[in-house]
Amino acid sequence: MSENPVLKIAYQGEKGAYSDYAIDRLFGDKVVEKYPSRTSYDVIDAIKNETVDFGLLPIDNSIIGNITHTYDLLLEHRLYIVNEIIIPIHHAFLAVDQISKNEIRKIYSHPAAISQCEVFLRAFNDAEIIPTYDTAGSAKMIAEKKMYDTAAIASEKSADLYNLKILQKNIEDFKHNQTRFVLVSINAGNEDPKNEILYKTSIVFSTPDKPGMLVRCLGIFEKYHINMSLLTSRPHKTELWNYHFFVDIDGHVRDENVSKAFDEIRRIAGSIHVMGSYTKFIGNE
Amino acid sequence: MSENPVLKIAYQGEKGAYSDYAIDRLFGDKVVEKYPSRTSYDVIDAIKNETVDFGLLPIDNSIIGNITHTYDLLLEHRLYIVNEIIIPIHHAFLAVDQISKNEIRKIYSHPAAISQCEVFLRAFNDAEIIPTYDTAGSAKMIAEKKMYDTAAIASEKSADLYNLKILQKNIEDFKHNQTRFVLVSINAGNEDPKNEILYKTSIVFSTPDKPGMLVRCLGIFEKYHINMSLLTSRPHKTELWNYHFFVDIDGHVRDENVSKAFDEIRRIAGSIHVMGSYTKFIGNE
Repeated sequence: MSENPVLKIAYQGEKGAYSDYAIDRLFGDKVVEKYPSRTSYDVIDAIKNETVDFGLLPIDNSIIGNITHTYDLLLEHRLYIVNEIIIPIHHAFLAVDQISKNEIRKIYSHPAAISQCEVFLRAFNDAEIIPTYDTAGSAKMIAEKKMYDTAAIASEKSADLYNLKILQKNIEDFKHNQTRFVLVSINAGNEDPKNEILYKTSIVFSTPDKPGMLVRCLGIFEKYHINMSLLTSRPHKTELWNYHFFVDIDGHVRDENVSKAFDEIRRIAGSIHVMGSYTKFIGNE
Repeated sequence: MSENPVLKIAYQGEKGAYSDYAIDRLFGDKVVEKYPSRTSYDVIDAIKNETVDFGLLPIDNSIIGNITHTYDLLLEHRLYIVNEIIIPIHHAFLAVDQISKNEIRKIYSHPAAISQCEVFLRAFNDAEIIPTYDTAGSAKMIAEKKMYDTAAIASEKSADLYNLKILQKNIEDFKHNQTRFVLVSINAGNEDPKNEILYKTSIVFSTPDKPGMLVRCLGIFEKYHINMSLLTSRPHKTELWNYHFFVDIDGHVRDENVSKAFDEIRRIAGSIHVMGSYTKFIGNE
């Protein structure tokens, strides 16, 4: 942690990226210094060499599902989750000038945004759709290079930031498009649970490669009346067709029932990596 | 089904793609007509308008995990799975001529192959890495356009097919790199189980949005001693943070214990879409 009381937060993408907006929402009026970063690896590097206090990474989207790359990074770097935020995602179709749609030859955006606007993009058969590292980064590029036959898919905010025209708003295929972001750190959060706060705890574990092991572990949550809000898996890279299971539950790791459940799971799984207990994000829009 | 006894199989990618090879492995000596297709959508279209009998799609990879796009297509088009095959994936680094690595300015391949060679690609900081629709398609393109400062990541077989030089073999980051492919159809397989065959059954279902519902469903498999070999989820596109669960189990839908288990799950989930019972693929290399 820096001595400076202003928190430093790295995020993937350029100014105007959805992650940038998520940080604003997460910290509210609190002043933070935001560090745009080209890749998720750069975010991780910044956390590890302590250039920043935290990193913000997208982890789940309500349309395209888990951001698997983030799960892999959490695991590989044994990161901790200290908070979460869910924000609505509305994409806009941006261009340097008010051109008509049939003049567009190239469309740039992040692959996730491209996936979320698949139906909208079907109308652009003649245009080349080019994946990039960032939505806002695509907006910035077409603005800086003055690419007149080109559009970018990015937030409306990016239009303001990079002085682009909005050709169309809300081009996402499904209205309920939301992304969950996590605030990550190399240090575990270590706060005792407060009564007035609803907590969520994220863990990851593997089970022995025997039939029924996962179901037995999950049954333990039911036994202790613990609600599971997420279950996903990522491959063991070195053990063929073996998996790490990521589970989010309601409750704090120091709650009695959670602590008992984890002990029982440890007896099956050998170990659990507790990624963190943090305030559960409630409500949106 | 066509009257012609030669089966027609569509796959995503060009000649030399891993899917092409997977079809050869799946059908062995049986003569089939293979239809290379630019996108998975084209494969689905070909099945639906009955240009072909079956489509072959990649569904899981041992390193990068589930091919989520295939799961979404299976669901959206209510496709059936009639067979599966798992093949080892070994990527090669191909170029038009025997150039040295520091001459390479651009590297083309499918995003999945790029992800699987991440460590290898770190040595190419100055090269632009460009995702394309296909591994073999990338090989074909650099060959046809004679792109001398460019490499493609594709199978060794593609080097033969498109007359390219192999700069390096086995560039995948992890040795155990395997992909599972499924043979899909618009018609359900309808074969009675044979005693000498080990079957696998793939289903998809949703649960009511109440705590513990998924765990209750999975517990039913344990009750009937049914082994679950896959569990994954995909978002409901129209119901926020709700999921479709995909489960593969050992056994045939007409086995007594499987049929009882499905009946019990239906009581919780409302319905199950049985995607198919098919011969379980065993062993490799």
